[in-house]
Amino acid sequence: MPDITLIGTGGMLPMPDRWLTSCYYFHNGHAVLIDCGEGSQVALTEAGCRHNRIDVILLTHLHADHVAGLPGLLLSMGNGGRQQPVTVFMPEGRAKILAGLLAICGGLPFEVRLAELPFDKPYSFTLPELDPMLTFSSLPLQHSERCLGYSLSLARKPEFQPEKAKELQVPVKYWKQLHSGESVQLEDGRTVSPEQVTVPNRPPIKLTYCTDTLPLDEIAEFARGSQLFICEGMYGDEDKKEDMDRKQHMLMQDACRLASRAGAERLWLTHYSPACAAPWLYEEKLRELFPNVSCAKDGMKITLTGD
Amino acid sequence: MPDITLIGTGGMLPMPDRWLTSCYYFHNGHAVLIDCGEGSQVALTEAGCRHNRIDVILLTHLHADHVAGLPGLLLSMGNGGRQQPVTVFMPEGRAKILAGLLAICGGLPFEVRLAELPFDKPYSFTLPELDPMLTFSSLPLQHSERCLGYSLSLARKPEFQPEKAKELQVPVKYWKQLHSGESVQLEDGRTVSPEQVTVPNRPPIKLTYCTDTLPLDEIAEFARGSQLFICEGMYGDEDKKEDMDRKQHMLMQDACRLASRAGAERLWLTHYSPACAAPWLYEEKLRELFPNVSCAKDGMKITLTGD
Repeated sequence: MPDITLIGTGGMLPMPDRWLTSCYYFHNGHAVLIDCGEGSQVALTEAGCRHNRIDVILLTHLHADHVAGLPGLLLSMGNGGRQQPVTVFMPEGRAKILAGLLAICGGLPFEVRLAELPFDKPYSFTLPELDPMLTFSSLPLQHSERCLGYSLSLARKPEFQPEKAKELQVPVKYWKQLHSGESVQLEDGRTVSPEQVTVPNRPPIKLTYCTDTLPLDEIAEFARGSQLFICEGMYGDEDKKEDMDRKQHMLMQDACRLASRAGAERLWLTHYSPACAAPWLYEEKLRELFPNVSCAKDGMKITLTGD
Repeated sequence: MPDITLIGTGGMLPMPDRWLTSCYYFHNGHAVLIDCGEGSQVALTEAGCRHNRIDVILLTHLHADHVAGLPGLLLSMGNGGRQQPVTVFMPEGRAKILAGLLAICGGLPFEVRLAELPFDKPYSFTLPELDPMLTFSSLPLQHSERCLGYSLSLARKPEFQPEKAKELQVPVKYWKQLHSGESVQLEDGRTVSPEQVTVPNRPPIKLTYCTDTLPLDEIAEFARGSQLFICEGMYGDEDKKEDMDRKQHMLMQDACRLASRAGAERLWLTHYSPACAAPWLYEEKLRELFPNVSCAKDGMKITLTGD
C-alpha cells in the first residue's frame, strides 16, 4: 500500500513557512518523487522522507519552482552514498535544458538517466525492475511551458478469501501460493486454481497529480477513479478566474469541479499562490463543490489502502 | 556605512535549521549578494533582507551549494516587479554553465548580465553607476572547482573636523561643501580648502569573504585590514585536517590563523559541515588563536562603522 506525502504546497516561490509543491510516493522500498523545487530536499528531511529511496523523479515541467531543487537533491543523494541510477522523466524536448541545470552537480557517484515523455498524447509505461504492478501515466496539460500531469496506478492481486479456501478444505500451507496466482495440487489429488479462492478485478490504487495548467476536460478523465487527486488551487476567490485563465493556472474551485467529475475519492489542494496566506479558510465553502476536499498543508501524509 | 548580514552558514546542503552560506552587503540603497545556494531567497526573507535591492551578485564558484538558488531568486525579483539589470560575477570560463542553469527562468522582466573575472590573478574593479567609492576585488582560490574570494572596500571621505572649521571662523553653511572636497571663498575674501578642515586617509571599510578553498597564504594578504573577515570553517577538530586538505576546504583553526596574519578586526566563521551540529562549542578554544572570532549563526548582522 503506497504512502503518499505532500512535501510542500507552495507555488512560485519557497516561503519561510511553505515549501514548494512536491510529492513523495513510497511503496515496497522504492520512492517516486514528483517535482523538486528549490528547497525540496529540506522539505523531504523535515517530512521524514528518505532521499536515498528515490529511484524515479517525475517532473511536471521545467519551471524553476518545480525543478530548481534537483541539483541539490541529487548531490545530497550522492553524499548519502547512493550508487544506483535515478531516472528523471520530463516532457519531450526538455532533456537538454535539464542537462544544463545539472551541469552544476559534477562528480555524482551514480547515473542520472534523463527520459522524455510524449507531449502530443497521453502515455503509459511500467518500470518492471522497480515494480511491475505500478503503471505510470502522463497527460499533456496546458500551461506557459510544456507540462505533464501524472498518475500512478498500483495494480492489486485478486483478494484472497480464506472462507472459500476453508470451504474447499485447502490446507493453509497452500494459501500463499494460490494468492500469488499459482494453482496447487492437494494431497487428495484435487487441483485448486487461484480463481476458486480469490475475488478478482479489484481496482488499482491510484494517485493523480496535476499542477500548473488550465482546468482541461481531459484531466477529469485522467484522474478517474483516483483514491487521491492532488491538484493545484492557486486561489479560492472566483474573481481571480480571469487572471488564472491568463496565467494558465487553476482556482481551488476548478480543482473541485474536476475531482467531482473524475469521481475521485479525495482531493488535496496545493500550489497556493504566495499571496494566499491561509488556504484552509476556503475549505468549508469548497465542500459544497466536492465534499472530500482538503486544503493540504506541507507534510500531509496518507496511506492509500484502496479500501 | 555598510550593513552586512550573513544569510546562512551551512556548507554542502541546506538543512532545516541552517541555510547555505551567503552574504548580503547593503550600503546606500544598493545590495550586493555573495553566493546564492538553494533556499537563499527564503533565508533573505527570514533575515529581513530585501531581494529587490540586489544589483550585484558575486559567485565564488559554481558548485550547487553556492549557486542553485539563483534561478529562484531572480524569478522572485522579477515577480517583485524588478526592471533594472542585475550583474552576476563569477570565475572566468563559467558563464556558459551559469547560462544553462538560468535556462529555467524564462521571461524575466529585467536583464541579467553575466560577467567573468580573471582566474589567473587578483583583480579589482569599481561599478561607478552603483557606487564609485566601492571597490570590488577578487582572488583566485584553490578548490575542486574554480573559486574566487571577494573583498569589498568602501573608501571614505576625509573626516570633517568641526573644531578646525570653527578655529578658522568658517560659517556652518560652507561645511558641507568643504567636506565633499570643494574649496570655498568666504565673504571676507579668504579661500579655505578641504585639507584645512578634514583629516585625510582614513582606511576604507573592508569586508573579505573566502570560502571553499585551501588556506592559501595569499588569503592573509587579501584580507589585510578587513573590519570583517568571513571565512569557511568546516570543522573545529584538528584531526579533520587531512580530510579537509584532500577536499580543499578549511578548518576553523585555519581561518583563525589567516585572520590573525591578516590583522583583521573580526572573524566570522561559516560554511560548517552538515556533520558539525554545534559550531559554537569550538568558539572558546578558537579565541586562543584569534580573540575576536565568532562561530556565526544564520542571520547574524553587523554595521561596519569603520571606527
